[in-house]
Amino acid sequence: MLPLKERFDLPQGVIYLDGNSLGPLPRGAVARATEVMTQQWGQELIRAWNTAGWMDLPVRVGDRIAPLIGAVPGTVATGDTLSIKVYQALVAALKLRPDRRLILSDKGNFPSDLYMAQGLIETLDQGYRLLTPDPEDVLNTLSARGEEVAVLMLTHVDYRTGRMHDMAALTQAAQAAGAVVIWDLAHSAGAMALDLTGSKAEFAVGCTYKYLNGGPGAPAFIYARPDLIEAVEPALAGWMGHEAPFAMDPAYRPAMSTERLRVGTPPIVQLAILDAALDAWEGVNLTELRAATMTLSDRFIAEVERRCPALTLASPRDARRRGAQVAFAFEHGYPAMQALIDQGVIGDFRAPDIMRFGFTPLFLDEDDVVAAAAVLERVIADGLYREARFQNRAKVT
Amino acid sequence: MLPLKERFDLPQGVIYLDGNSLGPLPRGAVARATEVMTQQWGQELIRAWNTAGWMDLPVRVGDRIAPLIGAVPGTVATGDTLSIKVYQALVAALKLRPDRRLILSDKGNFPSDLYMAQGLIETLDQGYRLLTPDPEDVLNTLSARGEEVAVLMLTHVDYRTGRMHDMAALTQAAQAAGAVVIWDLAHSAGAMALDLTGSKAEFAVGCTYKYLNGGPGAPAFIYARPDLIEAVEPALAGWMGHEAPFAMDPAYRPAMSTERLRVGTPPIVQLAILDAALDAWEGVNLTELRAATMTLSDRFIAEVERRCPALTLASPRDARRRGAQVAFAFEHGYPAMQALIDQGVIGDFRAPDIMRFGFTPLFLDEDDVVAAAAVLERVIADGLYREARFQNRAKVT
Repeated sequence: MLPLKERFDLPQGVIYLDGNSLGPLPRGAVARATEVMTQQWGQELIRAWNTAGWMDLPVRVGDRIAPLIGAVPGTVATGDTLSIKVYQALVAALKLRPDRRLILSDKGNFPSDLYMAQGLIETLDQGYRLLTPDPEDVLNTLSARGEEVAVLMLTHVDYRTGRMHDMAALTQAAQAAGAVVIWDLAHSAGAMALDLTGSKAEFAVGCTYKYLNGGPGAPAFIYARPDLIEAVEPALAGWMGHEAPFAMDPAYRPAMSTERLRVGTPPIVQLAILDAALDAWEGVNLTELRAATMTLSDRFIAEVERRCPALTLASPRDARRRGAQVAFAFEHGYPAMQALIDQGVIGDFRAPDIMRFGFTPLFLDEDDVVAAAAVLERVIADGLYREARFQNRAKVT
Repeated sequence: MLPLKERFDLPQGVIYLDGNSLGPLPRGAVARATEVMTQQWGQELIRAWNTAGWMDLPVRVGDRIAPLIGAVPGTVATGDTLSIKVYQALVAALKLRPDRRLILSDKGNFPSDLYMAQGLIETLDQGYRLLTPDPEDVLNTLSARGEEVAVLMLTHVDYRTGRMHDMAALTQAAQAAGAVVIWDLAHSAGAMALDLTGSKAEFAVGCTYKYLNGGPGAPAFIYARPDLIEAVEPALAGWMGHEAPFAMDPAYRPAMSTERLRVGTPPIVQLAILDAALDAWEGVNLTELRAATMTLSDRFIAEVERRCPALTLASPRDARRRGAQVAFAFEHGYPAMQALIDQGVIGDFRAPDIMRFGFTPLFLDEDDVVAAAAVLERVIADGLYREARFQNRAKVT
């Protein structure tokens, strides 16, 4: 049934290879936001917390994300940003292993995840250390020092290269060594079938503005393995995680459900947009989606390598070891990406030299990726990226 | 120039006395959300982070909030929820006083603020204690134990009673004792003129969905005194607080500005709605607004006391000691508020017995408050609240 381009409002004349950074506007999202603002906020006012179901929206949306990540309903809460959810999961995980002091991640983890860990370590001031070996050395580090590791915290798919960790194997190795596992699914959720339940991982977090198309700054999600929920002590102990928020109890008593992972008042408009965006997944088979992604990205690699010899593949060549994105290293990558975007093919750039392309078969087909490669060929071969207007732009992508 | 009812889309037949909980829909907010979604997200896609100025939106919106709280531009960052901002301010404040172990708040503080402090204390496990004397005893506690107090953390206006702390006096007393001060302005921002700069308080936090009309779950704000910013060590060290987020530096280096108080990817749609909502403040004189609020709330108290002898004023009688809300205690307060709402007068209920009414002269005039009191009189005198349908509703308001 793929692609399902009619489920999105895509601009004319653009091939969008950056759904891995910000998914496109789903049909129905604007109407939903308008309804929430005009009918619910405007007409119901404060009553809408009950009459429009705002109070439960974070968990209802979590229940719709759950099957996309291989989790059961009732295990996923939404809200806040991914960085906050990383912090929340990390503190909870550390509290489960009070006698250990190592946090194991890797050099390829998204910087904000590492920053949140650093900020936590400095705040706790209890001798915690963050280890960041090369991604390929995580398993070795677990073998060598696993018994010191409190938490293994990894991003499943590398944000630059698309390199994908083996979730099942690493989870098993970490747990065999007695560590708790947190997976950041930012670049995985909506990109492939996932089996969080089967992995037995304790925690997972992710964002919803990439492959889940929830819009800029859409709420994050957090999963906790259901048998653990009563053992999770939220450091970010907000009233929406309280067993009875409106009892206005002076003492915090966490909810006896995944709701204890909520913190403050939920961003209702963005949650409603995300809820509408999740309609795009109706009837989508994630195994079929993954196969289509592999076909698209393999085809793109073949086309680019044939057409653009100056570019070097910076992603695993084996599609089974990649997420849904492909990276090419090119010394003029920044201006080349600007010039490519100027020609209507949108990817993005990540320092120092990575041109990054995402393959999202919900709205892309093979003709799109071949056409994109042809435009890239022209940008490189004709030296379009050498024009001053591309050289001088501020380096923010 | 007040009221400015034409700046809001208010439902027909409703008198809205709950702008202190969720401000009404400002004109222009729906159009702004639609523009952001359709034109920026839909057409510009990922490029909108630059072309539509999304990256700077949190600080631009903060700069518009600054004059409303008596702060200078460049000192206010927006994003996250108020609970998260309480945590962020509290950790930063504690780090400024590493040799002290008391957090002084009061029993009247909003529960989530106290929960966040409790969660932090348990997480730090370094002997911190939270003191919550009666609000009237905070000054005495500072006199007796001020030299042990690391942080004085108070909500300026009590969420139930409207009782208002003396910001200048308490800040001065706390600082004289060597403590750092955090003000929660949730029930103050947009309700009165504030002088945060003049108070010399180190930190302030607040939400924007009440008197600032930013919509359900609108982003929070955080202020840090500008001379302190380089000493603030963010515990929530997210990439948007990094000096150069897109350098993808493995080590966290906080921005040398108020931006270091940002954490994760900002909620662009809700920030844009808030930005549109702030247009409602154009030309509004906060001193005039405050005078109008006092007139409205004094008139409401007089009318209710004359018409409804069963209700007992639970707010300070002196309008100068109240925020912009008035509370009445009534043993049947919960069903009475439901019945009142059913009659088109919307206030809210706070456990155990408080009927709460907010007075926001941007969209209310004296005729409204007299009419509201008359409806309340009928609800009480005729015993409308005794109907079973009001008794049995879930106790969430």
